[in-house]
Amino acid sequence: MANTIPTRIYLNEEEMPKFWYNLRADMKEKHDPILHPGTLQPVTASDMEAIFCKELVRQELDDSTKMVPIPERLLDFYRAFRPSALIRAYYLEKELGTPAEIYYKFEGTNTSGSHKLNSAGPQAYYAKEEGLETLTTETGAGQWGTAMAMACGFYGLDLTVYMVKVSSEQKPYRKAVMETYGAKVVPSPSDTTDSGKKILEIDPDTGGSLGCAISEAVEMAIKTDKCRYVLGSVLDHVLLHQSVIGLETKAAMDKFGIKPDIIIGCAGGGSNLGGLIAPFMGEKLAGKSNARFIAVEPASCPSLTRGRYVYDFGDTAKTTPLLRMYTLGNGFIPSANHAGGLRYHGMSPILSKLYHDGYIEARSEVQTDVFDAAIRFMKTEGILPAPESSHAIKAAIDEALECKKTGEKKVILFGLSGTGYFDLSAYMQYNAKTLTDKIPSDDDLAKGFASVPDIPQNK
Amino acid sequence: MANTIPTRIYLNEEEMPKFWYNLRADMKEKHDPILHPGTLQPVTASDMEAIFCKELVRQELDDSTKMVPIPERLLDFYRAFRPSALIRAYYLEKELGTPAEIYYKFEGTNTSGSHKLNSAGPQAYYAKEEGLETLTTETGAGQWGTAMAMACGFYGLDLTVYMVKVSSEQKPYRKAVMETYGAKVVPSPSDTTDSGKKILEIDPDTGGSLGCAISEAVEMAIKTDKCRYVLGSVLDHVLLHQSVIGLETKAAMDKFGIKPDIIIGCAGGGSNLGGLIAPFMGEKLAGKSNARFIAVEPASCPSLTRGRYVYDFGDTAKTTPLLRMYTLGNGFIPSANHAGGLRYHGMSPILSKLYHDGYIEARSEVQTDVFDAAIRFMKTEGILPAPESSHAIKAAIDEALECKKTGEKKVILFGLSGTGYFDLSAYMQYNAKTLTDKIPSDDDLAKGFASVPDIPQNK
Repeated sequence: MANTIPTRIYLNEEEMPKFWYNLRADMKEKHDPILHPGTLQPVTASDMEAIFCKELVRQELDDSTKMVPIPERLLDFYRAFRPSALIRAYYLEKELGTPAEIYYKFEGTNTSGSHKLNSAGPQAYYAKEEGLETLTTETGAGQWGTAMAMACGFYGLDLTVYMVKVSSEQKPYRKAVMETYGAKVVPSPSDTTDSGKKILEIDPDTGGSLGCAISEAVEMAIKTDKCRYVLGSVLDHVLLHQSVIGLETKAAMDKFGIKPDIIIGCAGGGSNLGGLIAPFMGEKLAGKSNARFIAVEPASCPSLTRGRYVYDFGDTAKTTPLLRMYTLGNGFIPSANHAGGLRYHGMSPILSKLYHDGYIEARSEVQTDVFDAAIRFMKTEGILPAPESSHAIKAAIDEALECKKTGEKKVILFGLSGTGYFDLSAYMQYNAKTLTDKIPSDDDLAKGFASVPDIPQNK
Repeated sequence: MANTIPTRIYLNEEEMPKFWYNLRADMKEKHDPILHPGTLQPVTASDMEAIFCKELVRQELDDSTKMVPIPERLLDFYRAFRPSALIRAYYLEKELGTPAEIYYKFEGTNTSGSHKLNSAGPQAYYAKEEGLETLTTETGAGQWGTAMAMACGFYGLDLTVYMVKVSSEQKPYRKAVMETYGAKVVPSPSDTTDSGKKILEIDPDTGGSLGCAISEAVEMAIKTDKCRYVLGSVLDHVLLHQSVIGLETKAAMDKFGIKPDIIIGCAGGGSNLGGLIAPFMGEKLAGKSNARFIAVEPASCPSLTRGRYVYDFGDTAKTTPLLRMYTLGNGFIPSANHAGGLRYHGMSPILSKLYHDGYIEARSEVQTDVFDAAIRFMKTEGILPAPESSHAIKAAIDEALECKKTGEKKVILFGLSGTGYFDLSAYMQYNAKTLTDKIPSDDDLAKGFASVPDIPQNK
């Protein structure tokens, strides 16, 4: 098979992006502003700087600069693991017998195992530049914590990671990687913070959630000298950094004249999907593209498909600023039996706005179907995918099979955000046919929604 | 840092090798022939075909064809995970403060986590072409078993993997990956074979060894219909397939006019080192290069540095043909506390011959020093290396520091054959400072040598 389009497309170093793309600058309607939880007024930079690094706050609040230069020393960091490959899924296409062309951008070959390193690098870099000594963060599946551990190791910063308890128990090796890079890992909820203690009082046996872990990490950041908090998803500055995924993908596709018709990503907090679609969505907003965009979320944590578009806290202890986003309520705790890292009650405000305005579609998938798709993918394409990324695989396969029915030769692009190396206990459960899923009932959802703040903006 | 030489060099698809390079064809003195263990005469193709696929036997016995074409459907397989990156270790160089240039070829980004997939593909491909239905093999650290599981999954073959017992206990997730790809994994020694039973009778608590596992896999292959055995290292046809590593590396270096002065690889059975050095050694044998070649082995299993250059069996049960190689004796069982997959008593006949004739240097390293080097590497270069590969890192760092002393600006190339994702229990031991090493005493070695066959050729 001598293909016109190679199986793996890599950019040369000089073709790699030197700027991030700020999609918001091209959105005619911006998302609603972040609100201060006390005053219910739009947050100011100085409000946010109690929690976040200055430059990240500046990026968070800047919705007009379109191209944001990547500092030279950060390009150094990116060069240590980028470019990632854009891969044509010839083997999967053949197995499916589809006329569709399928491409995936594979972010899983760095040691953190996922796309998270794209934002961990900048966040550690700016903290160092600003003279900070310690960072705190949370991690669910472990990818973000590992990425931050690597970045802090690279730039020489201390790091405390609050790891969702159920994940820290399921994934001792994830913990080991973070510790090997020098990070301190605390299973959350813990008794090291007031918010952790409070959650443990209510439910001593909780497996934890990203929402809890965020509360603890933010609390520690506020109480510690020369310390700030970093977040791996949801916020606009994270999506800005992750635009490197989409920019590389688009550059690689442009080289071969490929135009995607459907762009698919899994969506937890939205950083992977937001990064992948950024430049393609920019074209759509400019009327230069008719591409469809599909967010795929777990049926156990369906913030877009079953959530509400309201202002909510980012954490369980209700300490963060308020974001207008699709949310299941900050009190929603997804069932512990889900393997993936998509267990977050909210969703990126940018993606929420785009979904609300009809630019993005969303669907939810149950875990067993997602693993069926993962196995089909790994047996043909060779790569063991992360359960999170496998949500995108499921949708890509479904779209390709739809093309098989209709005979359409569509171009499907999806984000393969990470590997499943550290999720093998989930694969072992799948092999043993003991993997299950728990779809929240309407009652479960009602309980979650009850935690949404009762403020005028939500009337 | 705008570097003349990019951090990561990838070949384009059309630059990828279409041929393997058979180094033996350029060796004026060939290694001694493989002997039939019964007749002590050079084996014939038909002798070997009881155990191995026909085409692999043909390759094994062919020491004159220099360039061996890679079949088109195998190039398909390679395209699923190749090319691998050649990486300039700018960050490590800086940390060491060395004037040396350090490059490494990273084979660890495919799901098997190592270079082993380069030979697993061809071995499964030829088996399928020849109408076989089942393959058997052994695995130590698990890389080879995983690679074969992937390749058999790709080509549609059954696979039974005898996994060294101590590894199967230390690495349940490795087992899970193999099983997810559809392989059957049997901890070795087992009661499924006569040779396994015999070893268990002598030492029911043995942690096993590659030598034992090979005996079991060979026995099953011989006793099963439409079944053959495959080996992941040592033999010439494996080194032939692995030459793809060196060919890609050389093509990437040639593009930028880089000439390595020192080429380093870890050496267990020799497949990684043999593959990496092939085209460079070809130049040296032709008098066109003065490069130095360094094999790095664990102090706990020092076949080159403390072994004997004699005919020995490849397995503990003394069932395989006899290979003239550096060996610690087929009865030598390295201590179970070593984390790496370099626990094999013998060494590739090609590398043994080159070492014997002075073309290759060898050194052995203790485990704790190797992990020190691994940590230094992962904190600067980002990648979590396999313990095996970290032996090469240790030597590369030592050579770079030597350059720092002398001020020489040498070009150092080493093979980073795999990732440490599945060796995290070893890293956890390292972090807890409980990692140890056991260097065999002269008595231990004498016991091993006592198992070397007493045949005229060994006088």
